[in-house]
Amino acid sequence: MTPADLVEIELIKQLKYRYMRLLDQKGWDEMEALFSADAEAAYSGGKYAFSGPDAILEFFRKAMGRTSFLSSHRVHQPEIRLTSATTATGIWALEDRVIDTERNITIQGAAFYDDEYVKLKGEWRIRRTGYSRTFEEVCPRDGKSPPILTASFWGTAGRSDLPAPGS
Amino acid sequence: MTPADLVEIELIKQLKYRYMRLLDQKGWDEMEALFSADAEAAYSGGKYAFSGPDAILEFFRKAMGRTSFLSSHRVHQPEIRLTSATTATGIWALEDRVIDTERNITIQGAAFYDDEYVKLKGEWRIRRTGYSRTFEEVCPRDGKSPPILTASFWGTAGRSDLPAPGS
Amino acid sequence: MTPADLVEIELIKQLKYRYMRLLDQKGWDEMEALFSADAEAAYSGGKYAFSGPDAILEFFRKAMGRTSFLSSHRVHQPEIRLTSATTATGIWALEDRVIDTERNITIQGAAFYDDEYVKLKGEWRIRRTGYSRTFEEVCPRDGKSPPILTASFWGTAGRSDLPAPGS
Repeated sequence: MTPADLVEIELIKQLKYRYMRLLDQKGWDEMEALFSADAEAAYSGGKYAFSGPDAILEFFRKAMGRTSFLSSHRVHQPEIRLTSATTATGIWALEDRVIDTERNITIQGAAFYDDEYVKLKGEWRIRRTGYSRTFEEVCPRDGKSPPILTASFWGTAGRSDLPAPGS
Repeated sequence: MTPADLVEIELIKQLKYRYMRLLDQKGWDEMEALFSADAEAAYSGGKYAFSGPDAILEFFRKAMGRTSFLSSHRVHQPEIRLTSATTATGIWALEDRVIDTERNITIQGAAFYDDEYVKLKGEWRIRRTGYSRTFEEVCPRDGKSPPILTASFWGTAGRSDLPAPGS
Repeated sequence: MTPADLVEIELIKQLKYRYMRLLDQKGWDEMEALFSADAEAAYSGGKYAFSGPDAILEFFRKAMGRTSFLSSHRVHQPEIRLTSATTATGIWALEDRVIDTERNITIQGAAFYDDEYVKLKGEWRIRRTGYSRTFEEVCPRDGKSPPILTASFWGTAGRSDLPAPGS
């Protein structure tokens, strides 16, 4: 690892940080430029899988577009590896919480992302992204119902049992 | 971005990390040196706004000084931009949780910081800091009352509806 | 701080990130290589203290080995200081959550790590690690019992009052 490598790693981190922020700010139009044209996504252990930026963004707009869907997705612990001058992989730890005031629930969980990045015309883009859940739970916001475990790495292979948001 | 830029970025990150740690350790005296003399703060969508390190620290001592106010403020996803040799901006994602054993509540939320930094005599300082809430909720610690949403980016312009702590 | 220093700091961060990930993935065999032979651990304000990788890993296997023990440990805000060409210290902020489906509880808390690292044959290793709690609480997953505060920095010197996991 060289100081020049660190510049690439920092640029990849900032790409991911912009993506995570736009997710919670519902900045779908701005987000499109962060993907390569051949981008693939496989969220929640592959439950939500999409090919191409259009399909990924359609999913986000439908599943997370409502302003009653208040989300916080935070990534941690980047293990970025440069695999060539224009390709890289990244593992990240995710913690996310969603307050859905329409359905009166909180969804919270933990996961690990496995990503691939590609540098196109001098700009890093997301080529492949996705995560598997360590756990996920749904907490009714009624002050009396217990939380329900909806995913675990060992029990559901990292996939959520929840009905798809927006479905 | 050059390797030399990364050194400045790392120094700015460590400044912010020291600030966040001292917040939760109640290290008010040590914190003073992290601000420039003309520092401005605007927390919770501008609800808590202060000019100068003295006013900022007076707020912290009053609002967060009690040892029954147990806080965890964690910043993520730094998008640091050097705007000159001695100025920089930073966007950060915040997750915070407070257990207040005196009021028997938990306060938890998510936000984005917008900061400005300035390098004075070779040391980076915080010149402007503040955040807007994506959401905030208060959870009574009685095992029966539901959580109450007290802020949202779209509903309250990122400001908290909670009475000021210490008021 | 120089660009070359940043390379060492990044390598230390990636060591810590691998350690945190393996903790939640239960990758005990892989984890062993991250410690120096003389590694010391003192978790939860020194409540859980061990000498040598074997003792540390035995603790993890026993306390966290069950797949009904679903954990998320996330570190933030690294203040890494290189103290020589082959030694370094690190302060980190921890947020952790455990869903224990066997005991039907959630344990969650916040802490600060104090670490030491050593470079041996070109590889950074963990020589000393440990944390003190800012707070810790246990939340019964029954929808009716209130959370119980089990540690605080000011009330219990950062140690947990909980019975040892696996005990």
